[in-house]
Amino acid sequence: MKNNSASALVSPIQDFLEELHHKCAADNGGQVATYIPELAKADPDWFGVCLVTANGAVYEVGDTRQEFTIQSISKPIVYGLALEDNGRKATLEKVGVEPTGDAFNSISLDPGSGRPRNPMINAGAIATAGLIAGKTPASRFKRVLETFSLYAGRELKLDETVYRSESETGHRNRAIGHMLRNFDKLEGDPAPVTEMYFKQCSISVTCRDLGIMAATLANHGINPLTGRQALRGEYVESVLSVMGTCGMYDYAGEWLYNVGIPAKSGVAGGVLAVLPGQIGIGVFSPRLDPLGNSVRGIRVCQELSRHLDLHLFNSPATGQSTIRLNFTGADFNSNHVRTKEESADLRELGKVLQVYQLQGHLAFATTEPVLREVLAAADDLQFLILDLKRVLSINESAGHLLHSLLAKLRARHKAVFFTHCDHLPLLRRMMKKKLGEKFAGAFVTYPDNDLALEWCESCLLEHTRHSRASSYRAKPADYHIFKELTEAELKIIQPLLQPRTFKAGHKIISAGDAAREVFFLSRGNVNVYLPGEERHRLARFSPGMSFGELAFLDGAPRSANIVADTDVECDLLTLADFQALGESHPAIKIKMLEQLCLDLTGKLRKANRELSVFE
Amino acid sequence: MKNNSASALVSPIQDFLEELHHKCAADNGGQVATYIPELAKADPDWFGVCLVTANGAVYEVGDTRQEFTIQSISKPIVYGLALEDNGRKATLEKVGVEPTGDAFNSISLDPGSGRPRNPMINAGAIATAGLIAGKTPASRFKRVLETFSLYAGRELKLDETVYRSESETGHRNRAIGHMLRNFDKLEGDPAPVTEMYFKQCSISVTCRDLGIMAATLANHGINPLTGRQALRGEYVESVLSVMGTCGMYDYAGEWLYNVGIPAKSGVAGGVLAVLPGQIGIGVFSPRLDPLGNSVRGIRVCQELSRHLDLHLFNSPATGQSTIRLNFTGADFNSNHVRTKEESADLRELGKVLQVYQLQGHLAFATTEPVLREVLAAADDLQFLILDLKRVLSINESAGHLLHSLLAKLRARHKAVFFTHCDHLPLLRRMMKKKLGEKFAGAFVTYPDNDLALEWCESCLLEHTRHSRASSYRAKPADYHIFKELTEAELKIIQPLLQPRTFKAGHKIISAGDAAREVFFLSRGNVNVYLPGEERHRLARFSPGMSFGELAFLDGAPRSANIVADTDVECDLLTLADFQALGESHPAIKIKMLEQLCLDLTGKLRKANRELSVFE
Repeated sequence: MKNNSASALVSPIQDFLEELHHKCAADNGGQVATYIPELAKADPDWFGVCLVTANGAVYEVGDTRQEFTIQSISKPIVYGLALEDNGRKATLEKVGVEPTGDAFNSISLDPGSGRPRNPMINAGAIATAGLIAGKTPASRFKRVLETFSLYAGRELKLDETVYRSESETGHRNRAIGHMLRNFDKLEGDPAPVTEMYFKQCSISVTCRDLGIMAATLANHGINPLTGRQALRGEYVESVLSVMGTCGMYDYAGEWLYNVGIPAKSGVAGGVLAVLPGQIGIGVFSPRLDPLGNSVRGIRVCQELSRHLDLHLFNSPATGQSTIRLNFTGADFNSNHVRTKEESADLRELGKVLQVYQLQGHLAFATTEPVLREVLAAADDLQFLILDLKRVLSINESAGHLLHSLLAKLRARHKAVFFTHCDHLPLLRRMMKKKLGEKFAGAFVTYPDNDLALEWCESCLLEHTRHSRASSYRAKPADYHIFKELTEAELKIIQPLLQPRTFKAGHKIISAGDAAREVFFLSRGNVNVYLPGEERHRLARFSPGMSFGELAFLDGAPRSANIVADTDVECDLLTLADFQALGESHPAIKIKMLEQLCLDLTGKLRKANRELSVFE
Repeated sequence: MKNNSASALVSPIQDFLEELHHKCAADNGGQVATYIPELAKADPDWFGVCLVTANGAVYEVGDTRQEFTIQSISKPIVYGLALEDNGRKATLEKVGVEPTGDAFNSISLDPGSGRPRNPMINAGAIATAGLIAGKTPASRFKRVLETFSLYAGRELKLDETVYRSESETGHRNRAIGHMLRNFDKLEGDPAPVTEMYFKQCSISVTCRDLGIMAATLANHGINPLTGRQALRGEYVESVLSVMGTCGMYDYAGEWLYNVGIPAKSGVAGGVLAVLPGQIGIGVFSPRLDPLGNSVRGIRVCQELSRHLDLHLFNSPATGQSTIRLNFTGADFNSNHVRTKEESADLRELGKVLQVYQLQGHLAFATTEPVLREVLAAADDLQFLILDLKRVLSINESAGHLLHSLLAKLRARHKAVFFTHCDHLPLLRRMMKKKLGEKFAGAFVTYPDNDLALEWCESCLLEHTRHSRASSYRAKPADYHIFKELTEAELKIIQPLLQPRTFKAGHKIISAGDAAREVFFLSRGNVNVYLPGEERHRLARFSPGMSFGELAFLDGAPRSANIVADTDVECDLLTLADFQALGESHPAIKIKMLEQLCLDLTGKLRKANRELSVFE
């Protein structure tokens, strides 16, 4: 089939965007902005569409690399920086968040407070520009440009020609600046602030940049391509809110109703639209409608919303698939290989040990089902392991809930463990803050489930009649393979056993080696690892057990490394001696093979049981 | 530890709501509505809070079972019914969707069109009431009441006293009715329409009802407790949009900015708030602010938004965890037990078989990563299995994408299978529509992965040198357990084999029975099932293989049923005869035990490999 694959398969999403581009390109309505000569130079046929997912997948079609000035799309971006610099409260004192039916360039201030109605009209944007921190006008604009570059994931530049043109013709905006100064919504000389505003509007971007900037807002302020934070997560909702209600000039209600994607347009023809948590959209087409929105830009957003079901109020439900897996210590055990008796005990005792593997983003609605399920079964619970390996993020609300769960279960003397949580520093910080002095004892974490399971199992097995001291030393009569041998038979086999001692850390078996012997452990513990994966223990053996018998039996090369975890004493039996037993003492060999079969049967039953956990 | 559990553990969410209730109960600001005497009778201290997740978990505190009239909260519910009856376009001709700064009861119609600005002000709500289908006023109100009851999940009733009171004093609303008639926004006599409006406002609900109604909107229109649809999913976004921008009278921008939860209040003190896909909130407290919103109702929404990070624009990201598991046919195989040679072949050939297990809600943003990953590896792919067992829902956009993926891969002669998709009828419908005549051949589904994997494996193995015809008949010399026996040894063992034949469907082994024999299959196939789980096949055996040896070896009772899938011929060997072999012919028994060990070793290695898929 390879001969068909000369041309790579094109994603249906790419196909869809190309069709959409073709369809919307036929729409020649609207006029290129002409209020400054530089904008009038734009080719009215330029048309690019770029869709970027919150995971960083980029789809683009048309003139997505053509540079143009960002214009009013700078407003929400600068508003975010102003929020970071001043907080929500101080920012709201200078600029409101109410939609207005007035034109974008009206000098419309709230009659009572003198506040511009919102940061998306020019008056509000100029007041916002005045909130940017920095010692000099130059350092303030430098911060703005750096922020924009973080959003776009590349170094953006000022278009000097457009800036000069804006500045030369910007009397109306200067008037707004003075009006704001009059109402104390600007401090000091308004001139540098209006210049800053002209500059922020004159930053040069491409349609692709807009798509990535939008995706950064969709991704909680983190650019999904660079992984760098452009806006603190807590302010993303504020920026999107003003875009949602005031972004497309008039028509706040209709835009949200029909398109349902918070968006901002600019007079150079750009549109940036954000579906939180999902995708970012950039469109560029310079022909504008009478309100100053790109005609094709609006059309593209409408079509995307309709055909891809992308409406804000139609987002996929969350919360029903946070629990990826739930099992008990009776169904699934650590890789610490237990004796037959211990295994039987765990099949009973393990029921009080519950493991929940969580996934996705932990927020209130996604964490609630976990609490509900754990608490409903809490009476029968003694150990809880929360495996966060597949959790992508956690917010404060989810952190609170997990802390409360921990505190409640501990108050009932139930043990709680978190595994795989190094990638979620917020959880540790919140636990530290809330648990205070109790933190070290209460927030118990393990790098993986295996070690956490082992600890719980050891607690469960500790007081059973099969429990053994860690100093337990097995004699050949205790080796499970020799279980059915008579004393006389043991005396025959004993001379074939070659004692070996290994220091802790010694590699007893190396993956890839030929298998010429089986080992019987008399003292200490050995661990099994795949080469190069020393953090993940495949098995742990205790005195009385044999190891290395799989390759011994089927003649395959050793498949894993086996390492002495403590100082170890063991006996080895060579394949040659074992084979010779068939001739010299068949009854002994039969008993040994029967025990090996039994042992393998037990292991296979356990593996099958564990596989059924994942069904 | 059971002695501590006399009192059940209370959820931290319940704790949080109780604290919140206590805190907000201290706020005695606002006045009970008095414009009709019935409302003035409310106890100003009544206060209930109810939070219901989109999954149907209910948390409630305070006076959540106190009945009161729904008042303006009826507006979005009736608007949804009007959309179902008339579609979006016809509805928009009668009522706009723009927020207005006017008071809720103003007679404010758009000067151009005569349309009420939005359905949340009285004029818009009365125009909406006029859009409800039905032959008589009584049948129209019956439909309204039935719809409300579907939302609440119980039979709601009209409060006749409040209705009469509303009707007697409702001159302003009657004036609005006539004004609407004047602008042709109402047809026929406006009187029955205003009466309908008075009635819809006088439906009696509890705070708990509001929570459940809100959760119904959060759950795409399906009541999460009853599972019944109250509003068609496609109109939920429209209802939430008008709530989002026009729901809380004035302050559209600030509400979305500060609280970010679409909401609607009523003058009896109710508030219904919806976080799409996540939770519904009902609050009841009769003291109102000057705008007619419940003071504590607003406070509760603000606190929930702040403390639980519930802002609309701060929803947990989707799309990054749609792929729950991905493995190839080299890592994981069907339960059709293969010979050693076939297994070795599959470890190579199986690489072209990819299985993706998906989870959660499939929409554009959650399906895109699947397409991206599959297409990136498409050149090396021959068989694709999409396992939808854990997919909770699929929307049209995702259906389109999956259809395009299927069409593209089929055009390259790659086979695509869907498993576990009976719970997603939309997928089948869309495939049927889009594939047309090709449907039956192209949309191939299997009830589970096992059968799909088996089919692909059989294709892969078909032309290998180890492939066997389905009519293959094994002789004792072919039984893998006798592989190492000489002809002379075979002659010794043969008389111990007791031939048996079974008709297709016969249960050869029953779970729970004592195990006194092992079977060797000479012709046909047998399947292994757990009792009561006949849809899920644990294993399938072919001629030459043995079955029933685990219990035979370890003496445990049979753990599963084994059923003849075709007419079957096999040989059985009793445990007694096998044991006696140790005395009479130890060399034969050793060879057989060695083969059993080898067989078990192979199965254990396979199980361990498959377990590692789930790591």
